[in-house]
Formats: sequence, structure tokens, C-alpha cells
Amino acid sequence: MEQYKPGLHLLATFTAPETALQDIEACRALFDRLISANQLVKVGETYHSFPGSGFTATVCLTESHISIHTWPEYGHATFDVFLSNYKMDNEPKVRAIYNAVIGAFTAVEVNRHEIRR
Amino acid sequence: MEQYKPGLHLLATFTAPETALQDIEACRALFDRLISANQLVKVGETYHSFPGSGFTATVCLTESHISIHTWPEYGHATFDVFLSNYKMDNEPKVRAIYNAVIGAFTAVEVNRHEIRR
Repeated sequence: MEQYKPGLHLLATFTAPETALQDIEACRALFDRLISANQLVKVGETYHSFPGSGFTATVCLTESHISIHTWPEYGHATFDVFLSNYKMDNEPKVRAIYNAVIGAFTAVEVNRHEIRR
Repeated sequence: MEQYKPGLHLLATFTAPETALQDIEACRALFDRLISANQLVKVGETYHSFPGSGFTATVCLTESHISIHTWPEYGHATFDVFLSNYKMDNEPKVRAIYNAVIGAFTAVEVNRHEIRR
């Protein structure tokens, strides 16, 4: 049996403009575009808005998941992208998605963790 | 304005018996029980089985998320629980859920990360 090949999980805590942290539809469109561009397979998703505040979302992929939770009242968000390497090395895709999200939110990273798991 | 209070995100990579890593319905029942026992609010979920193999699941909570991805062919899984502290200190709940999942899977941790974010 082949050995399990750990995938890369990137976790950001970032600050961003309040308007971006409230715009659930822009986030959904961004995630869908990135999932499609990176040929990932979405098997389910939840996007949930908090009235007058931020939103929370998880996207379940055959390759693992993407999540974001925003607190516009603090200018704060947490964002994760984790892709396993079951069929191929997905590390470049993790980094591409991460960078695209940071860019789209004009985010400033408070911290970033990189975990291979 | 009050300061944002970082929440605890626990991430496990663990090994467990193949049968547990295939049993998506037992996992769903476990997560639902833990969400209810800890008075968390689920706003959406995805549970997806891979035929003849493992499963992948994300549960979106108003408090953030729970996720699990299993590879029974490697005896391997990755599990996350992350609860924000928006209304109260949820750290004891994160630890309670984490320990309950490790126990239910009779899991052996390969590694564990604790991130406050």
C-alpha cells in the first residue's frame, strides 16, 4: 500500500474592510470561481449571513474543505483552505486559492499557519 | 467597541480503525449529539461518502465549524473543531468536543495543533 501523503492546510486570520466582510455573495462567487479554476470538486456548501453583521461559510470538497467566518464589527475574519493530496499534489492550488482570497478581500494577515496533515 | 476575543481551533490528525473511518452515519450521530449537548447552533452541513472508502464532512455553526475527512485505506483522518468566543468563552466546549471525537473513534493522535484566532 502506498503511504498517505499529507496535504497542506493554510489558516489565515486577517483584517479587511467592513464592506468586504459583509458581502457574502461576492465571497460565494469568489470561492466558486476558485473551485472551478482549480478543478476541485464541491460536494456541498453552507453560506449563512448574520443580519446586520458578517457571515459564516463552509465548502466541502472531495479534496477537503474551505471555510470563512467574518466579524465586520471587528474588521476581522478567519479563513481556511485544506486540500489533501490523494490523487495529486494540491499544494500549489492551496497557495493559489489562499493568495486569491487574501487579494480579493484586500486583507492584511494577522497571522498565518501552515500545517501538513 | 469591545476587542475581538480569539477562539480556539483544535486540529487533529489521527489514526483509527478502518470500520470507524467508514461509518459516516455514526459520525453524523456523534456530531449531532455533541452539537446539541454543547448548545451550539448548526446552520448547515455536508456529509459525503466515497464508495468503498471513507467520507468527508463539514458542519457550519454560528460559532464557526467542525470538519472531518477520513481515509480508511490509510487508517488516517483529519478532524477540526473551531468555536469563536463571540458571546461566551467556548474553549471548554472545543476541548469537550475534541476529546469526545477522539474517544468515539478510539483514535490515536498523530499530531494536534491548537490555534487561537
